[in-house]
Amino acid sequence: MRPRVIVNCAMTADGKLAGRSRRQLRISSPQDMERVRELRASSDAILVGVGTVLADDPHLTIKGLPPESNPLRIVLDSNGRTPSGARVLDARARTIIVTTEECERTWPGAETIRCGRGRVDAARLLDLLGERGVDTLMVEGGGEIIFSFFQAGLVDQYLVFVGSQVVGGRDSPTPADGDGLPEESAVRLRLTGSEVLGDGILLSYEVANG
Amino acid sequence: MRPRVIVNCAMTADGKLAGRSRRQLRISSPQDMERVRELRASSDAILVGVGTVLADDPHLTIKGLPPESNPLRIVLDSNGRTPSGARVLDARARTIIVTTEECERTWPGAETIRCGRGRVDAARLLDLLGERGVDTLMVEGGGEIIFSFFQAGLVDQYLVFVGSQVVGGRDSPTPADGDGLPEESAVRLRLTGSEVLGDGILLSYEVANG
Repeated sequence: MRPRVIVNCAMTADGKLAGRSRRQLRISSPQDMERVRELRASSDAILVGVGTVLADDPHLTIKGLPPESNPLRIVLDSNGRTPSGARVLDARARTIIVTTEECERTWPGAETIRCGRGRVDAARLLDLLGERGVDTLMVEGGGEIIFSFFQAGLVDQYLVFVGSQVVGGRDSPTPADGDGLPEESAVRLRLTGSEVLGDGILLSYEVANG
Repeated sequence: MRPRVIVNCAMTADGKLAGRSRRQLRISSPQDMERVRELRASSDAILVGVGTVLADDPHLTIKGLPPESNPLRIVLDSNGRTPSGARVLDARARTIIVTTEECERTWPGAETIRCGRGRVDAARLLDLLGERGVDTLMVEGGGEIIFSFFQAGLVDQYLVFVGSQVVGGRDSPTPADGDGLPEESAVRLRLTGSEVLGDGILLSYEVANG
């Protein structure tokens, strides 16, 4: 069975994941960061795109947890661009790097999965993860990866923290980038909750018919 | 005295004013449309950029109000591109088209203000509108205009309805486009309210130190 897919991100009040430079922008409040920590700890796996690895070099681990208790880290990396010194390759948790079948690169410290030709086949990847016992998958970004999951109809829940700042920028990354959907094919959500967390607000959605 | 500037817009849950085609996307719920109607009716003037006129051709009037009761309509149109058949030029309300001093075009049915060289000087425009008794100015978009008001430090209140859909698109318009601000210069807001309106949620902000 496919894992339940939870997309989690933080955007500014004008819908940006970061500013025009794409450098990490502190959007989440401390209360939201604590929520994300708990969500990570309750997930079987955490997935990001290689763009996020290249831009932010995150650990994707939970402070204080031993490696065997941390969620599996998954990097979607069609062409194998993850740097060998990336933090997701450290020993603090298991890591899978997912490339297309054309890619032959391997990484010390990580397992590789070849899945799809030309681009990673996300639906097939979810099947593979489900077979390994991943029941809950948290997708943390960036906007290209999140869009591809929405486009493929693979998202079950969408959690977006809206920070209290405006950064602007027609080229700034947003929670769902990619080519965009035709208006008539927009993914319908159902707002299931809103909660003020520090200086921002968390909006929770289920995907309608998702 | 400068008018109080209220930016009002509706974005998808992934931060878009419209999809990649820029065609109008129905984001607001009926309850939110009623709120916008009341906000328009309580404003002295409503401002949009020429991009919005070209894309959506809005009336910017309130159904059922006589011309003398409708708010003043203002089009920010540096280079004078408003089509002579645009609905904002109809007789349902007074209209001002604001161009740069270089532009010489005039429109039947509208007053023109020349304000600024190269681009419209929004701060100077607000001074002029204040002198005419405009106390409350509603800025409805698009994202380029909204960004320029934020960038110039001219926004007092930001109201954004977050609709329950994801449309994606790295080139889709957002509530604040333009060149974007450096991260350290992001405009700080203060969340003053949130209200579920139909299938979406209205977020209300004051600009911190605004």
